[in-house]
Amino acid sequence: MPAVLPRSLFLLLQVASQEAAPDVEAYRETFRKVVRESLARGEAYSKLERLCSVAPLRLSGSPGAAAAVEWAKEAMKRDGLENVRLEPVTVPRWERGAVAELRILAPPGAVGESLPILALGGSVGTPPEGIEAAILEVKSFEELRSLGEAAKGRIVLFNRPMDPSLPDSFEAYGGAVDQRGRGAIEAARAGGLAALVRSVTPGIDDFPHTGAMHYEEAVAKVPSAAVSTRGAERLAALLREGKEVRARLRLDCRDAGEGIGHNVLGELVGRERPGEIVLAGGHLDAWDVGHGAHDDGAGCCQSIEAVRLLRALDLRPRRTIRIVLFANEENGLRGARAYRAAHEKELPDHVLAFESDRGGFTPRGFTTNASGRGLEILRALGRLLEEAGAGEIRPGGGGADVSVLERDGIPLAGLLPDRQRYFDLHHSARDTIDAVHPRELNLGAGAMAAFLHAVADLPERLPRNERARRP
Amino acid sequence: MPAVLPRSLFLLLQVASQEAAPDVEAYRETFRKVVRESLARGEAYSKLERLCSVAPLRLSGSPGAAAAVEWAKEAMKRDGLENVRLEPVTVPRWERGAVAELRILAPPGAVGESLPILALGGSVGTPPEGIEAAILEVKSFEELRSLGEAAKGRIVLFNRPMDPSLPDSFEAYGGAVDQRGRGAIEAARAGGLAALVRSVTPGIDDFPHTGAMHYEEAVAKVPSAAVSTRGAERLAALLREGKEVRARLRLDCRDAGEGIGHNVLGELVGRERPGEIVLAGGHLDAWDVGHGAHDDGAGCCQSIEAVRLLRALDLRPRRTIRIVLFANEENGLRGARAYRAAHEKELPDHVLAFESDRGGFTPRGFTTNASGRGLEILRALGRLLEEAGAGEIRPGGGGADVSVLERDGIPLAGLLPDRQRYFDLHHSARDTIDAVHPRELNLGAGAMAAFLHAVADLPERLPRNERARRP
Repeated sequence: MPAVLPRSLFLLLQVASQEAAPDVEAYRETFRKVVRESLARGEAYSKLERLCSVAPLRLSGSPGAAAAVEWAKEAMKRDGLENVRLEPVTVPRWERGAVAELRILAPPGAVGESLPILALGGSVGTPPEGIEAAILEVKSFEELRSLGEAAKGRIVLFNRPMDPSLPDSFEAYGGAVDQRGRGAIEAARAGGLAALVRSVTPGIDDFPHTGAMHYEEAVAKVPSAAVSTRGAERLAALLREGKEVRARLRLDCRDAGEGIGHNVLGELVGRERPGEIVLAGGHLDAWDVGHGAHDDGAGCCQSIEAVRLLRALDLRPRRTIRIVLFANEENGLRGARAYRAAHEKELPDHVLAFESDRGGFTPRGFTTNASGRGLEILRALGRLLEEAGAGEIRPGGGGADVSVLERDGIPLAGLLPDRQRYFDLHHSARDTIDAVHPRELNLGAGAMAAFLHAVADLPERLPRNERARRP
Repeated sequence: MPAVLPRSLFLLLQVASQEAAPDVEAYRETFRKVVRESLARGEAYSKLERLCSVAPLRLSGSPGAAAAVEWAKEAMKRDGLENVRLEPVTVPRWERGAVAELRILAPPGAVGESLPILALGGSVGTPPEGIEAAILEVKSFEELRSLGEAAKGRIVLFNRPMDPSLPDSFEAYGGAVDQRGRGAIEAARAGGLAALVRSVTPGIDDFPHTGAMHYEEAVAKVPSAAVSTRGAERLAALLREGKEVRARLRLDCRDAGEGIGHNVLGELVGRERPGEIVLAGGHLDAWDVGHGAHDDGAGCCQSIEAVRLLRALDLRPRRTIRIVLFANEENGLRGARAYRAAHEKELPDHVLAFESDRGGFTPRGFTTNASGRGLEILRALGRLLEEAGAGEIRPGGGGADVSVLERDGIPLAGLLPDRQRYFDLHHSARDTIDAVHPRELNLGAGAMAAFLHAVADLPERLPRNERARRP
């Protein structure tokens, strides 16, 4: 057996060189207790009902955002979080206005049809009378560039769908969202008058999905709007007939300067090493359509709830769990940056930065950028959640907000829920409480609570990520 | 390192004694292709839309069941299945009738309230004027027995909820469904006049959930109905006030003898070993409320679709894949028994019996009763579905229909979808097509197709289950 002996030797060396495997058995019963408590008596869902009722629209700098901050502060206090406080954040203010219209002017058979659109966040408006132009459809920036002068004086329609064949809808989203982020820049560069972007959603329906878009200093700012997938398909069908398709686009959205928002913080102070911090949170701002129920009311309510659950079960960990509900994730990440600036001295003592911002669906596990020993520890904890169906530990980030802390070497992690329905709702009028399932949301809160408790309580501190030393 | 050397020796021996690990790498690309095809161009959902439209109500022996059989036969032919045929099954006929009423007669404050109920399948009706009696609430058969004469002349309410703290809703269902199955027997034994059963669903709502119930030869047959969870809570609240709660129960359901139903069969004939059969299916009958979209239109449409997908990709496996849509799962399992009787001679050549009957939600993996080498092979195949999020292989059965083949030593397997929403809908008016998500259903069909193809194609035949030799 010549092939066997070297393998045995290899295994021998491996065994000898390993550190002891992470011993997390002591937490098995705690995990079970926390998860069961969250399912039987969890309050993540009832909190989310309340948030969606008192502050359904909470775009940065809006009265709704301020109402959400007030609600969150009170909810944290009610749930027994400690050191509840607000930290100010200068946020952009952008106003959607009242007019969003895309009306077909030609060909004759389609005249008068109005397609559902939403201005993209950050877009300039059109002149009051609108922009009237022929529509040019492209599937990519490369295609647009290859067309030379063709886009001049046109409204450019970016119509590349999410790839439906990918099991991971987040991967499919990543492959289409460039059109939303940079469509206006690329359209303007090509001489276009405006950018229309196919909504970044997998289905065919009548709901436009908004989201952030950007401009570049040296490039003209042209208006940009998302059209529903059915609307995009309609325009494409008309264009396939070979005739000119003309439309009028009207938007009265505008940049309204800056305002003051707040990060909302609360803690479960550690019983032995209070200065070591396990950060967890979501973002409290949301787009101004739908109610941000999944994005990211879900993550905010799960985060508060995680501490409430631990308190209800009298589980105060060794280290501090700090909940942060970030301002301005959607159009600026200014809340995350303000947190980093305000807590710079504490960053070396941040053990983990965790975010729930992928919707409130059935939790499958967690993503993390931890590696080596850190990953081993998180994997061992994941196995304690297999009974609850939430034990998968995948490589990945934590969320947009906590990504700001990556360069500080702080390990990141994020809740990984089921991924099939999220982009049906994301950034659209469909993201309301009735699309959230109470057990799914509460189970996610329970999985988070158990996981965060263990990371904050383990005798062994999670090692920092070596690859990402601060500059 | 005295502790290390013996371990190394152990590993050495282990490596030497093992059969080669199952080599399924050759199927990796096939799995990816099948899954992506199912997501991009899958037709499980469109088939299910059609089934729910042409035969929404398809209880055994009903005209709807016959319409479903006709539809399924044609759908199989359209999708290119081979040897499409019907096999007759003698089925029970039970008719729900038009009257199902539970009206409160006392206490005075609640008089006239009507609570939502559904007769349980198989129940006798009440006299036309109904049964008027006081209600006795119990949480278990043990409690009922301990109450001695208290149930005499009463309507017994079995009001034990599904345990909300269990992450696995199927486990919670298993812990409550005895009330539905045996409630009438136990109520009659205790001298009760009728059995009311809290609907076996985790939420609190106004939808009663029906399902099968049984009688015993020597025990009086009393009527039995499911009351909605909110209705059950209402009765319990009234009883907590300490007053007598009286109600009138009226049901005109009845046993209507027997009829003829059909199992529907179709195949993808194996290219090398056509006599070896990988059986897969679901049940075509459904309760006569809702449209049986998840239970089990989903499994039927996924099964037909699995073969369509393989044909579309020109993937004809070594062995035969036989699709069986069983008659009469819900109230008799007569379709499964008829299949076993009619195919007795082929049973030694059944390689696997697979069922999809847990709803059309996001697939997480598969359950199986295979062990040893068989389990190893299925686990290796499961790993090829991890990319699609469907790689979990859990111990468990396949489904009620294929469970009939367990004693023949045929390994069983079943699709394992996400489990949080199923019992919200199960056996109720809510089980309609709008509760099914197209991507989730199609992904399940793709995972099934890839898995079945590999089991049917692997050079190594899945071993039979040794523990379960035929008597």
